[in-house]
Amino acid sequence: MGNFKGHALPGSFFLLFGLWWSVKYPLKYVCRKNKSVCYLGSRAGLQRLEFVEGIIKAVFALIGMVAEQFVPDGPHLKLYNYEEKHWDHLMNWQHATMYLFYGISGLVDIVAHGTNALPVAIDRMMLSLAVFIEGFLFCYHLHGRAMLDIHVHQLLLFAIFGAAVCIFLEVFFRGSIVLEMLRTSLCILQGSWFWQIGFVLYPPNGSPEWNQTDHTNMMFLTMCYCWHYAFAFLILAVNYTITFFSILSQCSSPVIPSGSSAGFMTCLLDRFHC
Amino acid sequence: MGNFKGHALPGSFFLLFGLWWSVKYPLKYVCRKNKSVCYLGSRAGLQRLEFVEGIIKAVFALIGMVAEQFVPDGPHLKLYNYEEKHWDHLMNWQHATMYLFYGISGLVDIVAHGTNALPVAIDRMMLSLAVFIEGFLFCYHLHGRAMLDIHVHQLLLFAIFGAAVCIFLEVFFRGSIVLEMLRTSLCILQGSWFWQIGFVLYPPNGSPEWNQTDHTNMMFLTMCYCWHYAFAFLILAVNYTITFFSILSQCSSPVIPSGSSAGFMTCLLDRFHC
Amino acid sequence: MGNFKGHALPGSFFLLFGLWWSVKYPLKYVCRKNKSVCYLGSRAGLQRLEFVEGIIKAVFALIGMVAEQFVPDGPHLKLYNYEEKHWDHLMNWQHATMYLFYGISGLVDIVAHGTNALPVAIDRMMLSLAVFIEGFLFCYHLHGRAMLDIHVHQLLLFAIFGAAVCIFLEVFFRGSIVLEMLRTSLCILQGSWFWQIGFVLYPPNGSPEWNQTDHTNMMFLTMCYCWHYAFAFLILAVNYTITFFSILSQCSSPVIPSGSSAGFMTCLLDRFHC
Amino acid sequence: MGNFKGHALPGSFFLLFGLWWSVKYPLKYVCRKNKSVCYLGSRAGLQRLEFVEGIIKAVFALIGMVAEQFVPDGPHLKLYNYEEKHWDHLMNWQHATMYLFYGISGLVDIVAHGTNALPVAIDRMMLSLAVFIEGFLFCYHLHGRAMLDIHVHQLLLFAIFGAAVCIFLEVFFRGSIVLEMLRTSLCILQGSWFWQIGFVLYPPNGSPEWNQTDHTNMMFLTMCYCWHYAFAFLILAVNYTITFFSILSQCSSPVIPSGSSAGFMTCLLDRFHC
Repeated sequence: MGNFKGHALPGSFFLLFGLWWSVKYPLKYVCRKNKSVCYLGSRAGLQRLEFVEGIIKAVFALIGMVAEQFVPDGPHLKLYNYEEKHWDHLMNWQHATMYLFYGISGLVDIVAHGTNALPVAIDRMMLSLAVFIEGFLFCYHLHGRAMLDIHVHQLLLFAIFGAAVCIFLEVFFRGSIVLEMLRTSLCILQGSWFWQIGFVLYPPNGSPEWNQTDHTNMMFLTMCYCWHYAFAFLILAVNYTITFFSILSQCSSPVIPSGSSAGFMTCLLDRFHC
Repeated sequence: MGNFKGHALPGSFFLLFGLWWSVKYPLKYVCRKNKSVCYLGSRAGLQRLEFVEGIIKAVFALIGMVAEQFVPDGPHLKLYNYEEKHWDHLMNWQHATMYLFYGISGLVDIVAHGTNALPVAIDRMMLSLAVFIEGFLFCYHLHGRAMLDIHVHQLLLFAIFGAAVCIFLEVFFRGSIVLEMLRTSLCILQGSWFWQIGFVLYPPNGSPEWNQTDHTNMMFLTMCYCWHYAFAFLILAVNYTITFFSILSQCSSPVIPSGSSAGFMTCLLDRFHC
Repeated sequence: MGNFKGHALPGSFFLLFGLWWSVKYPLKYVCRKNKSVCYLGSRAGLQRLEFVEGIIKAVFALIGMVAEQFVPDGPHLKLYNYEEKHWDHLMNWQHATMYLFYGISGLVDIVAHGTNALPVAIDRMMLSLAVFIEGFLFCYHLHGRAMLDIHVHQLLLFAIFGAAVCIFLEVFFRGSIVLEMLRTSLCILQGSWFWQIGFVLYPPNGSPEWNQTDHTNMMFLTMCYCWHYAFAFLILAVNYTITFFSILSQCSSPVIPSGSSAGFMTCLLDRFHC
Repeated sequence: MGNFKGHALPGSFFLLFGLWWSVKYPLKYVCRKNKSVCYLGSRAGLQRLEFVEGIIKAVFALIGMVAEQFVPDGPHLKLYNYEEKHWDHLMNWQHATMYLFYGISGLVDIVAHGTNALPVAIDRMMLSLAVFIEGFLFCYHLHGRAMLDIHVHQLLLFAIFGAAVCIFLEVFFRGSIVLEMLRTSLCILQGSWFWQIGFVLYPPNGSPEWNQTDHTNMMFLTMCYCWHYAFAFLILAVNYTITFFSILSQCSSPVIPSGSSAGFMTCLLDRFHC
């Protein structure tokens, strides 16, 4: 979807997940460390969360696939144009393929955390593969575009392959807060950079276009990418701080009965309203 | 062997191994988890299986090497043509070299699992090397071919080197079900992609040839590669489910006496007849 | 800052840190091994040291950022020249961005070792990222320069990315003396190579310029880079030896009361005066 | 040293070390597994062996450095020709630099295994670095040569960097027999390939020269490289078998008194005379 919306939509998905993770993992870490009554720190609470995450991931992926297929100028499930003898809307099919693997990852999450049939670590492997496939398709996606267009997408590949490696490491170092925060930061970076790509390549509101062949633009965008990353860490730091202090002040209070589902909801709601 | 058969044959080998592994590793995992009476879950049962696998691998490799040498237009063990002063049938020799390393890997399996002389982990290292050598020879195999030809073989390299890295990791994380399933999926992918290459480069039944220089063909095949991978996971999921439920229903029944060889055979046969 | 000073300054920073680490890590290792009364071997002593290191790193980074912005021919916080429609002093902004990530790493050190809020391993991850970002920006920094200029900076990238990988490994193998000494050696190498770059590209005192297109110059500098590395190991060896023998002779003497802050200062001062 | 001898000499060094390791590591593994009276299986015996290896490595490196400097057409420690204003015998200096790092590695071995001052794992890190530096200098060594010349040296780089990675892994998985045998095989491969390079580029005895631009020669040599590797494994297998059976038959006999130095020498001599 070569327009502003087509970059803002996936960017928002990634930002949403990144922001959620920037709350979830500090929450988990602090709860576990303080051995508090917080439901989230328990194994059952976490498993339920991962289960819900899997459902949301699968639903988002389904929406993405349907949208790519049935937008007005989409392929409508038609892959080959037999009259004119050429492939039909390959771009949309490629994007749908990317979503497909995120959908598989969501399904695996649901089965792995909803039942005991699958080894738990397989959720990370599938997510890692989904991210890798996204990067893999991006690599072969850029043929014949303008220099700046290629450059901004190449920068994205650092975040994508970085995240794929990081998640693959989580297969072996599961629950490492450091890897989880690295993943979170790369996810936020990817989301915010999708927005940046939209603004650079398809400036909304009639802004003037960027010069696609100016080398200084490339240099600025490389630097801008680093600023996005610094910004991702700022968000992470702010969310970590808020989570840390709200947990410290509330969850360790003896009012909330341990393990009860109501206590968990109160605890979580308190978290989000503070 | 630059024809349809020459790609279908190795493809079938890889598919066969991939399909077998997609049954074996879930079987092993479920047996071990349920601490059931299943013979396969025991160390001796596994060792016997790996031993048989080694023999089959070595035999297949031998067949491959002999076939490459003694097909009608093969080199018949002649490496250099002294009259015309040029190398003879280098392609066949290269393929035979690939098979050679799979044969070595098979031999090492036989020795490592048939005796106690070798460290067990060496079977993974040799398999990893065999896969790596396959990819290594492929890399220097593609000089001067058409664009599409190079592209479909390059895509294959991802599966090959991915598998090599995955198997090398198994040296250190032996028995990790996640790595074993990743390897299985990459093996199925390699097998089915060999078939796809055959269909693309040497269309059987007089189908029209693919345009070797059309960029959209390349884009489609990249995407098609991902679909093959999704398909590999589908097979893995189906086989896992069948294995899981058949084991759950049967192996935990107290009828089969534990450890007896007859019980093992009954158990295995039941498995494959359900 | 394309002049001699602009390379000597960061070079001195890296040399300073490298030299300090070449004393600190042997000290830590020997103290821990001898279970001596040395304050540094204790967890509290180390945490205080890392805390102070974080402050120094953050202050250095702040100085670097301010200097890049407010040198006479700097951007003075102006990013875009709206009159002439071009980016302003992108080089200085890029250098400031590099310093920014070292500053973030310093801040994370301060919080991680000053409080108990953060997981300790996050200090290594942020340092690894800071080093990686430095290399990342260097990669896109060299467009359109002379051959020798590119070459000497590319050589630097080996030290930078090597250090980034090494520090990332420390996340998982924290406290491994081998990785710490590898990092130290790469840090000294980076520092001394910055000085070498300054001497090669901007010869001070009116020395004749190097021929930028002579291939033998490139070959010599590659070799020279290895000598710098050998020199870094020489420094490491000398400092290790001095530390080892001074610790052995003094710290194990029962005069210094264990754990007392005064004892620690005495011990450290003795160390540096011997 | 661009002649046959200049490749045969380092090749012989590597072959020697590879052959020795192909005896040493199986010996160590079998001894340890059989908890036999063999002196080599003990910690003290191993440390003494590594100490001796370090001395031999350092002496070989010193010989190499002196030879490169003082051969008749060598630089004789002269680096820059001030009269003609060019670098002098850079090739020899580069080779001497390679030897230098092997020398450092040897020195570190001597200190690490002769005293208790250094952490033991540092011997592997220095060896890994020495191998890496060798590959690093080779990379920048090949500028402007003929196609076949570049190709045979590039093939060598696989063995070199493979060995560097393998040895680096040994820092963390010290004593893993699988990694030790992988290293041994790569060392033998490097040694035998050095000889092959000599035969290809400087055919002795007036054999006709290889056509440097023929693509089939390149394809053959790639395959030939794999055969060398298969050959390395053959040597490893033969030595492993001999060691295994001789140890099994002799060392477990209760005649040799445990721990005595004389017993150790007898045991070793028996080993090498059988």
